[in-house]
Amino acid sequence: MDEKFIIKKYFKPLANSKDSLQLRDDVACINVADEKYIVSNQDSLVMGTHFFENDDPIYIAKKSLRVNLSDLISKGVTPYGYFLSLAMDDTIDENWIKLFAQGLAEDQKKYNITLLGGDTVSAPHGLFITINMLSRTNDSIIKRSGACYGDDIYVTGTIGNSAIGLHLLKNKNDNLGLDQLDIQKLIRKYHLPGPRHKVIHLIKKFASSSMDTTDGLINDLLVLAGSSGRKFIIKKNLIPHSISAKKFLNNYGDFDIALYGGDDYEVIFTSPMKFEDKLNEYAKKIKLKITKIGKVGSVSKNPKLFDENHTEFNTSYYTFKHFK
Amino acid sequence: MDEKFIIKKYFKPLANSKDSLQLRDDVACINVADEKYIVSNQDSLVMGTHFFENDDPIYIAKKSLRVNLSDLISKGVTPYGYFLSLAMDDTIDENWIKLFAQGLAEDQKKYNITLLGGDTVSAPHGLFITINMLSRTNDSIIKRSGACYGDDIYVTGTIGNSAIGLHLLKNKNDNLGLDQLDIQKLIRKYHLPGPRHKVIHLIKKFASSSMDTTDGLINDLLVLAGSSGRKFIIKKNLIPHSISAKKFLNNYGDFDIALYGGDDYEVIFTSPMKFEDKLNEYAKKIKLKITKIGKVGSVSKNPKLFDENHTEFNTSYYTFKHFK
Repeated sequence: MDEKFIIKKYFKPLANSKDSLQLRDDVACINVADEKYIVSNQDSLVMGTHFFENDDPIYIAKKSLRVNLSDLISKGVTPYGYFLSLAMDDTIDENWIKLFAQGLAEDQKKYNITLLGGDTVSAPHGLFITINMLSRTNDSIIKRSGACYGDDIYVTGTIGNSAIGLHLLKNKNDNLGLDQLDIQKLIRKYHLPGPRHKVIHLIKKFASSSMDTTDGLINDLLVLAGSSGRKFIIKKNLIPHSISAKKFLNNYGDFDIALYGGDDYEVIFTSPMKFEDKLNEYAKKIKLKITKIGKVGSVSKNPKLFDENHTEFNTSYYTFKHFK
Repeated sequence: MDEKFIIKKYFKPLANSKDSLQLRDDVACINVADEKYIVSNQDSLVMGTHFFENDDPIYIAKKSLRVNLSDLISKGVTPYGYFLSLAMDDTIDENWIKLFAQGLAEDQKKYNITLLGGDTVSAPHGLFITINMLSRTNDSIIKRSGACYGDDIYVTGTIGNSAIGLHLLKNKNDNLGLDQLDIQKLIRKYHLPGPRHKVIHLIKKFASSSMDTTDGLINDLLVLAGSSGRKFIIKKNLIPHSISAKKFLNNYGDFDIALYGGDDYEVIFTSPMKFEDKLNEYAKKIKLKITKIGKVGSVSKNPKLFDENHTEFNTSYYTFKHFK
């Protein structure tokens, strides 16, 4: 019983309005007036699944906001505000709350968002955070389903930092010759994803389909391919990694941890070839690293991902981080 | 460290937009276009706090929706749809999910609402449900703060059924001569609050201030009085109880369980005297029981509640159900 199974079998039949986008885009797009929409998504983080007991409350607060911000940003809309629900047991003290609120305040400033409402309840044990984040917009969103034949496939930033960071946290002796600065950088990426405001307008202007990467690049590319009903051809050797990640991966000898590991919170998107020059020019102007990693291929009933040698990607790693 | 303390000290400073209504009304009122608003609230239910392990999943689903519906309805707006977050441990099986989804489906039909989005995640232990419910409206809402001197104070339905139901569940031998039918009725009210669509237009047309009753009638009246900065004079003997509740209360010998017990999910509202006839006529037309229980008095810095003999109500029972 995984998340996708539950959603498809039991919850999708309940999402019977157009605004829900059939639960396909991780956001709903609620039509409020002529060309006025609320775009909204809701994600939960659970202690023991998405963060751990001794994690810094400031980081937990920021991660809770950012996983939600990432969803909206990848749709090309500007986040406005959020609802926060906090369920907590009696191990949470006032100092924890103080730091958590400090984390929220810092990211409210960074991302220009505001708290709109929510609730605080007691739980017998554990800590559960649910954020509903919303955007007010005049435009419709960039969906997952718009990729066309011949479109280029791009990814922002670099891939695998967070998964390697988690590996290093879990296996303290397995640092494979990385220095402390590299290790800190990678672990920080795991604790704190950094979705970037500046990608919003790039997506809105140039993308035909788009989503954020949360479940591992290859898994997410497969979802994007499936949503558009097309084959994707990915050039594995073009997939960008940070310098710290490259050091680790070269010594580790297996790139799968970076390709299938989750929590990158970058954006993958497709864009018509004709936009290539303008897209690169715009990305350069806003100082955003984007990398062309492949091409959208022909229509395919089952989502398929091929590398440059026309070998199908191993998707047996296809797991759902959110519901193990 | 109770809920109100946390919200006031740490979260209110983060709610720096007008749309949040300073977290005072349990809803946010988000201005999307000229005279177009999204009114939205978010509430969580936790196993072990708001429901229990062996409770019927159908009831849990309906209660989760209804505590949120109740908030919107009491503001005079019509609910449209909701986001659902479900965090659950591995004791939850597919049959549980099936029944839970059935409960949602039944109430979607009853209240004409639809699922818009959300997520499903795994938790190490426990079951946590967060609903964000929203309404699209052209009107502003009826706030808690609008009561004026001389307004009449009303309550819908009857008070205390749910608290007595919970008492009967916890004290199986303490039925005080109630027959099985009475007991079932009262317990059912605890399991399943019944906010009523039909109150929406009555509130919109006639109320100067309004909120739902979740933390016990007297506690909630004190909040309403405080929000409007006025004394409320309540005629205790006019507070309406159901026939089943009356039987219990007369034998129990203490009405406090009904006056201070939570989970009624009725609406308390104030209405200008000049509306009295039209209000009663309208209530009769839509077959909604409303009872005038008091009068709004003079301005008061501290919220105060008096009975008809000008004795101040005992508010030492003033507890916060949501955060024990």
